[in-house]
Amino acid sequence: MKLVRFGAKGQEKPGLIDLSGQIRDLSGVIPDLAGDALLPESLARIAALDPATLPAAPAGVRLGSCVARPGNFVAVGLNFADHAAETNNPIPEEPVLFNKAPNCIAGPDDDVMIPKGSLKLDWEVELAFVIGKRARYVEEKDALSHVAGYCICNDVSERHFQIERSGQWTKGKGCETFGPLGPWLVTPDEMSDTSDLGMWLEVNGEKMQNGSTKTMIFRVPFLVHYISQFMVLDPGDVITTGTPPGVGLGMKPPRFLKAGDVMGVGIAGLGAQRQTVVPFKM
Amino acid sequence: MKLVRFGAKGQEKPGLIDLSGQIRDLSGVIPDLAGDALLPESLARIAALDPATLPAAPAGVRLGSCVARPGNFVAVGLNFADHAAETNNPIPEEPVLFNKAPNCIAGPDDDVMIPKGSLKLDWEVELAFVIGKRARYVEEKDALSHVAGYCICNDVSERHFQIERSGQWTKGKGCETFGPLGPWLVTPDEMSDTSDLGMWLEVNGEKMQNGSTKTMIFRVPFLVHYISQFMVLDPGDVITTGTPPGVGLGMKPPRFLKAGDVMGVGIAGLGAQRQTVVPFKM
Repeated sequence: MKLVRFGAKGQEKPGLIDLSGQIRDLSGVIPDLAGDALLPESLARIAALDPATLPAAPAGVRLGSCVARPGNFVAVGLNFADHAAETNNPIPEEPVLFNKAPNCIAGPDDDVMIPKGSLKLDWEVELAFVIGKRARYVEEKDALSHVAGYCICNDVSERHFQIERSGQWTKGKGCETFGPLGPWLVTPDEMSDTSDLGMWLEVNGEKMQNGSTKTMIFRVPFLVHYISQFMVLDPGDVITTGTPPGVGLGMKPPRFLKAGDVMGVGIAGLGAQRQTVVPFKM
Repeated sequence: MKLVRFGAKGQEKPGLIDLSGQIRDLSGVIPDLAGDALLPESLARIAALDPATLPAAPAGVRLGSCVARPGNFVAVGLNFADHAAETNNPIPEEPVLFNKAPNCIAGPDDDVMIPKGSLKLDWEVELAFVIGKRARYVEEKDALSHVAGYCICNDVSERHFQIERSGQWTKGKGCETFGPLGPWLVTPDEMSDTSDLGMWLEVNGEKMQNGSTKTMIFRVPFLVHYISQFMVLDPGDVITTGTPPGVGLGMKPPRFLKAGDVMGVGIAGLGAQRQTVVPFKM
């Protein structure tokens, strides 16, 4: 299934995409794409519905983030060998984890706002997954049963905040609008294998990132296992798994986003995003 | 006011402590100590109640974390000059921020569990504050109007996970039970000045930390301002502000917690916590 959230910002309803591409309204079935509505039994109940019996959403409606505000938004850093190299970092022996503020999630086509004081706004196409069952000390062989689905995350990053403002990366990762998720949450029945998915990101039509999940160092099942050794993951939590080469920071000279730039972001099977960069506003 | 949450784990109700020390049940007034119930107008409404009209909670009831699971749980690192020195870190030019998993919060007297694989379990008494009004690019002079109240946080830390397992600190900060909060959320009418509060932590009755917020480098109003430049803070979000000297990592030789140890934790005006360290269990 392809699950979505549609409607005005802050008033999104859950939905699914039917075979004709029409969004069908799931708000009579689940309250939102969040928490317990992502449990396996809930997804099975949705999968058993006849989409034709669900109300159609209005044409051209806005898409919100494909899950509601998560309880935790964890990110994996330097998870592609080539990307670690382009940012002058060694290949990590274990996954590097950091946090994005859970309230930085945004719709896949929402504007990305330049934060006040930003100097180095950058892009990162990433495969994200969403937890569908509480994960606590999970074994790798059981890991995928804890995943409700997959989506694109543009792990928007402010490198000056991330690297040059003392300490940990979190300062440059959770600014308002820095977490576009979607367009769809694709459930494992449609995405059984994430080991070789093409992924790309372009700025103003110019291809910047053009990679594949096949060069990921640590894969989804291992990441579920690994992260669950350090914290409990709950249904609705989002984990974004790292970016392939081609970020602005890695270019010579480095290249960063400015107001008016348009990012196109895609992963095979997970659709595409399109964000316009807009100036800071209070 | 002193606000609390009481009852069995996962079923806590909101309450307040009346002048006689009795817990009064607020569950007929607000759903929980979380989100919009912490807005200034909501707290004003609670302050206007006659506690004698509220049901009394059962004697000896467990206290939960003094706020419900926050949307974000942000921590400030190395915020006491002497603590930075004892951990061999320079005094930061700007606050160092990191994240604790929001679901690691626990009651003030709940057991602290040694995570699987733990080698270096440590303690940190900290002053935490809770956001009561959305904070986005807040000026320092307006900052305190965004604070709903203050509480003790034991920023329990696993130093091997935090420092020796690749990358960012978050791995050693958000394990299950690593965020005891409480006993009380003390509102600003009872805690107008946090600039010189005695704070202490003892292990098995031996005083390990004995400091004061007066040696904090970055104070609460500046922290609200500062953090709100990098992320939006929402009502119910928790920020813990750093620890004074005396953590196990800073001792010569270092000293860490083991099963059966009992931590006592206190801050002047904010009450005291008491946690027993227990072995890992699935």
